[in-house]
Amino acid sequence: MQTYLQRAQKIMDRIQELAAISQTEQGLTRTFGSPAWREAALTIQGWMQEAGLHTWIDNIGNVRARLNSPAPGARTFVIASHMDTVVNAGRFDGPLGIIMGLDLVAQFTHTHTPLPFHIELIAFSDEEGCRFHTTFLGSKVVAGGFEPGLLLQKDAAGITLMQAIHTNGGNETGLPADAILPEDWLGYFEIHIEQGPVLYKRNIPVAVVKAIAGQQRIAITFRGMAGHAGTVPMDMRRDALGCAAEFTLAVEKIALANKDRIMATVGKLDVVNAASNVIPGEVSCTLDLRSADENELTALAASLQRSLAEICQQRHIDYEWTPVQETRPVLTDGFLNTLLEQSITTAGYEALQLVSGAGHDAVAIAAVAPVCMLFVRCFDGISHHPQENVELADITAAVEVAGNFMQQVITHINQHVLWKSPH
Amino acid sequence: MQTYLQRAQKIMDRIQELAAISQTEQGLTRTFGSPAWREAALTIQGWMQEAGLHTWIDNIGNVRARLNSPAPGARTFVIASHMDTVVNAGRFDGPLGIIMGLDLVAQFTHTHTPLPFHIELIAFSDEEGCRFHTTFLGSKVVAGGFEPGLLLQKDAAGITLMQAIHTNGGNETGLPADAILPEDWLGYFEIHIEQGPVLYKRNIPVAVVKAIAGQQRIAITFRGMAGHAGTVPMDMRRDALGCAAEFTLAVEKIALANKDRIMATVGKLDVVNAASNVIPGEVSCTLDLRSADENELTALAASLQRSLAEICQQRHIDYEWTPVQETRPVLTDGFLNTLLEQSITTAGYEALQLVSGAGHDAVAIAAVAPVCMLFVRCFDGISHHPQENVELADITAAVEVAGNFMQQVITHINQHVLWKSPH
Repeated sequence: MQTYLQRAQKIMDRIQELAAISQTEQGLTRTFGSPAWREAALTIQGWMQEAGLHTWIDNIGNVRARLNSPAPGARTFVIASHMDTVVNAGRFDGPLGIIMGLDLVAQFTHTHTPLPFHIELIAFSDEEGCRFHTTFLGSKVVAGGFEPGLLLQKDAAGITLMQAIHTNGGNETGLPADAILPEDWLGYFEIHIEQGPVLYKRNIPVAVVKAIAGQQRIAITFRGMAGHAGTVPMDMRRDALGCAAEFTLAVEKIALANKDRIMATVGKLDVVNAASNVIPGEVSCTLDLRSADENELTALAASLQRSLAEICQQRHIDYEWTPVQETRPVLTDGFLNTLLEQSITTAGYEALQLVSGAGHDAVAIAAVAPVCMLFVRCFDGISHHPQENVELADITAAVEVAGNFMQQVITHINQHVLWKSPH
Repeated sequence: MQTYLQRAQKIMDRIQELAAISQTEQGLTRTFGSPAWREAALTIQGWMQEAGLHTWIDNIGNVRARLNSPAPGARTFVIASHMDTVVNAGRFDGPLGIIMGLDLVAQFTHTHTPLPFHIELIAFSDEEGCRFHTTFLGSKVVAGGFEPGLLLQKDAAGITLMQAIHTNGGNETGLPADAILPEDWLGYFEIHIEQGPVLYKRNIPVAVVKAIAGQQRIAITFRGMAGHAGTVPMDMRRDALGCAAEFTLAVEKIALANKDRIMATVGKLDVVNAASNVIPGEVSCTLDLRSADENELTALAASLQRSLAEICQQRHIDYEWTPVQETRPVLTDGFLNTLLEQSITTAGYEALQLVSGAGHDAVAIAAVAPVCMLFVRCFDGISHHPQENVELADITAAVEVAGNFMQQVITHINQHVLWKSPH
């Protein structure tokens, strides 16, 4: 039997092998439908077959592998992550969860463990949504939540998603049948890098994701009066940038005061017709709000809108507040999280619970199944960047934790099945 | 004899006539060397000739007109403003001073007043510097301060200033001789719109310009750490925009607290690689500082640099402070200003003293002669814009004040000449 370290090393080797498959000569970029993305899919499918799994590629391009349970009425437990990447990506965002999932499932095929549920391992085709400006294409199909309107979405070259699906060898008419039926779902488990600095700063290898934050994105415009930087006295100005600066600090202050529950970011800020000798007359900016608590998110948005109104009134600045996007928070499953925590504690680590501020495929799946996620520490919180890195020791820790977790799930489902058998 | 109102009406008519001469079909644009600019020069020269003046166009394209004094050893008093415009300009910035100057000089030719000094009326060829990104080309030549290196400066089409001078019919070898010799200067008087809102807000038609502010322009870069807006906790961020916002407010605060002596503006601000879901890692901005007092300007820059250092240190942000441009303040002549104030009071108006935050040809002339300027109210402080406007009533007031002033100058020089005659 292999040690955790040996398994981690194999996982690391495969991550490096996958990272070499890129649509660019330099760095790693592997967007939905690109030749590199197809090559990666076939590579992953080959590894799944090597592990003795029944595999297929569905109509949205997800690579799927199944290990069926002999139990009558068995439901399906899905282990998954995504194989597409952002432009100039890191190596671990997505592939870590697929390849660790494959390692987990391979343990069961090697040991011929009789499972009380089916396991499906999925490499989702498109999570990042870089090509069609979408989210969670692959997992939406598996959850049965794919919106047909997306088929007409076009990429930068004018190719529709429908055409891309055909090019990939799929057909949009088959998408509904690619879903796992709601009654068949047992649960969902995703291993993913944290993409943030908390584990790195706290020196902990893994954590339970207790929720995936909801998000509100708001576009704000400030309109004052442009003027000559040398001729308009300071007390006669209606400086849109000064106003935007005061609001930016108000956002930061309220978010810092509630840092355990919310995040707030002014990410873009543009001065319209900017010149060094012109008082800014108009400024536009974006506001990104996140929280695991929907009420908190609503209250935060309302509070910042009030701050904005007050600041703008004092400065005689007109403003527009335009909600652009809203996603609701997703809570991971309490029972699965308890099992994950026990698995972490058993392996000798502190069982930290984190909120994921980034979206994940688990969001799409949560509509139909209990989901849970294991975060693995990444170097300095860096992600979506070539410097993205995970230490071998942390993969080793995650292998142990994930193995403990699957055993816990099996044990509990076995008990559950026994308890339920009289029916 | 014409009333002030009749003279103001003629001035207004000529301003409108000149405003119709544009290199664009819509609006007013008349940059150095354009056909419209040449047509305007000939129009102005025609008006000067009509008034009985000796006229010529010098090598830099200034339109010059002279009314000579019979007095032996008489020096030259220059009345001037500029005939070029910015792109999509207003009608009064420049032409008001030329055409009002022509009205003033015409009074002396009509009345055959024997003058104790020569008067030279000049329509400067290029003050705005739009074509060659220069300042005060015309007045620099008259002051003898033209830097020959400018001849190689190129416009957007790659044409050098030297080539443009040739096209205009001038020759660079003649530029030094176009200067009025330092010993010949008596003084300089420029009438110009305020280009700011103070007179408009205070409901006063004219003001004395006590100084033309010096300026420091500084480029500032803030470098923090980019990160995911959903994964980096608020207290682990190094947000370059938050830092820039705090600095922008510090600039505004110090300038407001010293509003009678300084102006400070953050005009441009760019977030590098901005995205709504990315914590800003790098921000660059400009800082424009102005004051009539050079020590004040130096102290302000030093104080803001200290603020910047403190704010950046607290936020763990690296910064660069790069001085880009510096011009020293120019004080107008105390004696001429006293005469201007008396002229305003005599006409029944409050004699307000303003600092000009914008640059003017008087800056170039101040290197060789005592200068003074009369500001005329413009609508809502708007300038460099088609909405730029001056009321006929304010031109009427300015005609009276300027007439009073020239009489005062003549009276004082006459006394001065008498007092000096024993030598």
